[in-house]
Amino acid sequence: MKKIALFPGTFDPFTKGHEDIVLRGAELFDELIIGLGHNSKKNRYFPAEKMLEQINQHFEDKPNIRAIMYSDLTAKVAKELGAQFLLRGLRNTTDFEYENSIAQANRHLVPSLDTIFIYTSPQFSHISSTIIRELYHYGQDVSEFVPFPLDK
Amino acid sequence: MKKIALFPGTFDPFTKGHEDIVLRGAELFDELIIGLGHNSKKNRYFPAEKMLEQINQHFEDKPNIRAIMYSDLTAKVAKELGAQFLLRGLRNTTDFEYENSIAQANRHLVPSLDTIFIYTSPQFSHISSTIIRELYHYGQDVSEFVPFPLDK
Amino acid sequence: MKKIALFPGTFDPFTKGHEDIVLRGAELFDELIIGLGHNSKKNRYFPAEKMLEQINQHFEDKPNIRAIMYSDLTAKVAKELGAQFLLRGLRNTTDFEYENSIAQANRHLVPSLDTIFIYTSPQFSHISSTIIRELYHYGQDVSEFVPFPLDK
Amino acid sequence: MKKIALFPGTFDPFTKGHEDIVLRGAELFDELIIGLGHNSKKNRYFPAEKMLEQINQHFEDKPNIRAIMYSDLTAKVAKELGAQFLLRGLRNTTDFEYENSIAQANRHLVPSLDTIFIYTSPQFSHISSTIIRELYHYGQDVSEFVPFPLDK
Amino acid sequence: MKKIALFPGTFDPFTKGHEDIVLRGAELFDELIIGLGHNSKKNRYFPAEKMLEQINQHFEDKPNIRAIMYSDLTAKVAKELGAQFLLRGLRNTTDFEYENSIAQANRHLVPSLDTIFIYTSPQFSHISSTIIRELYHYGQDVSEFVPFPLDK
Amino acid sequence: MKKIALFPGTFDPFTKGHEDIVLRGAELFDELIIGLGHNSKKNRYFPAEKMLEQINQHFEDKPNIRAIMYSDLTAKVAKELGAQFLLRGLRNTTDFEYENSIAQANRHLVPSLDTIFIYTSPQFSHISSTIIRELYHYGQDVSEFVPFPLDK
Repeated sequence: MKKIALFPGTFDPFTKGHEDIVLRGAELFDELIIGLGHNSKKNRYFPAEKMLEQINQHFEDKPNIRAIMYSDLTAKVAKELGAQFLLRGLRNTTDFEYENSIAQANRHLVPSLDTIFIYTSPQFSHISSTIIRELYHYGQDVSEFVPFPLDK
Repeated sequence: MKKIALFPGTFDPFTKGHEDIVLRGAELFDELIIGLGHNSKKNRYFPAEKMLEQINQHFEDKPNIRAIMYSDLTAKVAKELGAQFLLRGLRNTTDFEYENSIAQANRHLVPSLDTIFIYTSPQFSHISSTIIRELYHYGQDVSEFVPFPLDK
Repeated sequence: MKKIALFPGTFDPFTKGHEDIVLRGAELFDELIIGLGHNSKKNRYFPAEKMLEQINQHFEDKPNIRAIMYSDLTAKVAKELGAQFLLRGLRNTTDFEYENSIAQANRHLVPSLDTIFIYTSPQFSHISSTIIRELYHYGQDVSEFVPFPLDK
Repeated sequence: MKKIALFPGTFDPFTKGHEDIVLRGAELFDELIIGLGHNSKKNRYFPAEKMLEQINQHFEDKPNIRAIMYSDLTAKVAKELGAQFLLRGLRNTTDFEYENSIAQANRHLVPSLDTIFIYTSPQFSHISSTIIRELYHYGQDVSEFVPFPLDK
Repeated sequence: MKKIALFPGTFDPFTKGHEDIVLRGAELFDELIIGLGHNSKKNRYFPAEKMLEQINQHFEDKPNIRAIMYSDLTAKVAKELGAQFLLRGLRNTTDFEYENSIAQANRHLVPSLDTIFIYTSPQFSHISSTIIRELYHYGQDVSEFVPFPLDK
Repeated sequence: MKKIALFPGTFDPFTKGHEDIVLRGAELFDELIIGLGHNSKKNRYFPAEKMLEQINQHFEDKPNIRAIMYSDLTAKVAKELGAQFLLRGLRNTTDFEYENSIAQANRHLVPSLDTIFIYTSPQFSHISSTIIRELYHYGQDVSEFVPFPLDK
């Protein structure tokens, strides 16, 4: 059976840390779907549609990677997509505890859905979307933190 | 390409927590090799040969799971076995930090070798080989913590 | 002297994890008061009055457990209720650090008020009110996470 | 029913941090038994018999506190003593994770035995028996870290 | 070359924990600048101008300590002030992980800008501006947590 | 007054992570003394005298850096050397908690002795002397982890 994973996130913006997880995950799974979770009630800094388009363009040479947008429960979306796995990156222990709770809750909802973790490579472990938004807001060049140019 | 993972450990003894990781890992990888690391200089409580035999017997119905013994660097053994991945279970944040260092060091040694993590299921997260050895030492019944009977 | 404890929380909603702490706490203290902290300025998802009523109904067979609503500083309320102890559950290390600061601050305010901790049982450690609210919001059945039916 | 707790430890030596937990625990329980775990195979720095005697002498004015020595599994000893609770102090998150595993294992062995935690008061949180032994070894005055004079 | 450090924060309010870091930092650096970060869009509880004035008054006898207000990126402000170092206090592991990310990001922006950490003294480690605001809000006396009287 | 710091460690072996802390520390302090703690009772893997010589040779161009060997309490040695500060590197939260206890104990012994922390740069954060010893033991090339060739 084909092994399919969903890599869920807000990606506001998509960072080089996310890219690192995606590329390594694509070695592990037959198909990797980047899921940009978007709730129309929550404000984003970088528009969701543009970000989705940029992610898809960035990985267009990788046949087993694609990105979608969704606005439902992650576990339900994974099931509908036929994904047996969720993929998540871990940067530090704060990530760890939060992800642990989410992973257990997802297995309650869809018992066959397991969550697989990869450590963020050390050179990316301090990059977060939050910090990039703040730098961008103050007019800093953030190109070394993101895999493609950002537009607001 | 076939996806092969090595699940390294001391397994002194192999616990239901280890079994949980193995069974879930076998859903993810085409082949899962349990690697019982054994160094003749370090003392074990439960003999290595017997433990290896019991693990192999326990999983004999699972064609993509097998156990081996090794006494070299884990990353080198993985490479020789053709494994592209190491599999590790995470119980808590103390595990997390230790495993993080090991995983990064292994990628330095064999850049193509990535480490994949699964959280231990909550009902097994407090089970450790250390605690089982102590209970066994004091004559307690440890059968609910291990997947097969233990003999010293 | 009768030993009285206050178990403070927002309980939005009250979960099986909370129930676990309450039942175990009721073995330790002569009287256990569940304190639903409610600040009219902060929005809740599940109405406070209804939740209070459901908690009280759920424990009506337990003579040494009762629930109250309050909107003042926890330490002051404990003192007024004659409680010498606060009871708190710990799920993980993130909880630990937060609770530690609060506990020390409460002892500054009311030096005789000590905080007592119980670990959440592993089968409940991934249940949080936040996750339940999200599941409920997306129309999922959350009955296995809460001790009584939820109504909004 | 009388509430009895066992406070287990190696107490090599008994510190002001331990004293803080004992005194606060004695407010919570009807009877508090300090259990000095001693295994003849493990070496101690300060002799166990002398330490036990000093602890008992130190608390002789407190009718609900006494110290015993034991060399069996803590959970079994608690059961034999009629203790329904174990009492443990928490200094930091490393303590937390270790204690969590032990507490869950003990509830497996004796389901009615619950573990209760108190945070170490901040002025004592950096005091450990290990550090005191090292200071003593180098001839430093350690009297401000221990509740009674130490003799080797 | 004169060693200059910037100690950035929101200081809403400035606490005895902050004062502890400032006084110890002034032993280490030739000049220590307290930087009150203020963003007109974010609401404060205690007015920024008054707080700045009180901080400067409090340290007026210390010639190498002064406070400024700023509303730009911390790393850029440090550079403009000629500061080669940022100074930060660490209370616990949650602080640690957050500060780690920020420190690495700041070194990316200004490679010569290093971040230096001091542990908060144990008697201050549970004091946070958040807790003080809550106590003040409920009419509690907070004078033992802050180095000078607070006015709203 | 000249600002002098002691950077204590076992340095078995001295790593690129240690070198990173030393070079950054030398920007902060007027004089930085690397203190190789050596206890004749504890076994080392790499001989202490050779390591000391190699460290001194490695930094011979840096006039404000030198290395010494010592076998007494770190705080006492710092005092005798006229150092007002201890310098320590932090890699992760496990380091953090351990170092916190040591730092507080050292301030008890020598109240004027403060401990200053620098985060290990991310590219070095997974390097530990323990891992290097294990790699060396198995005949791996460890030259990318250490600043000078190792001899046993």
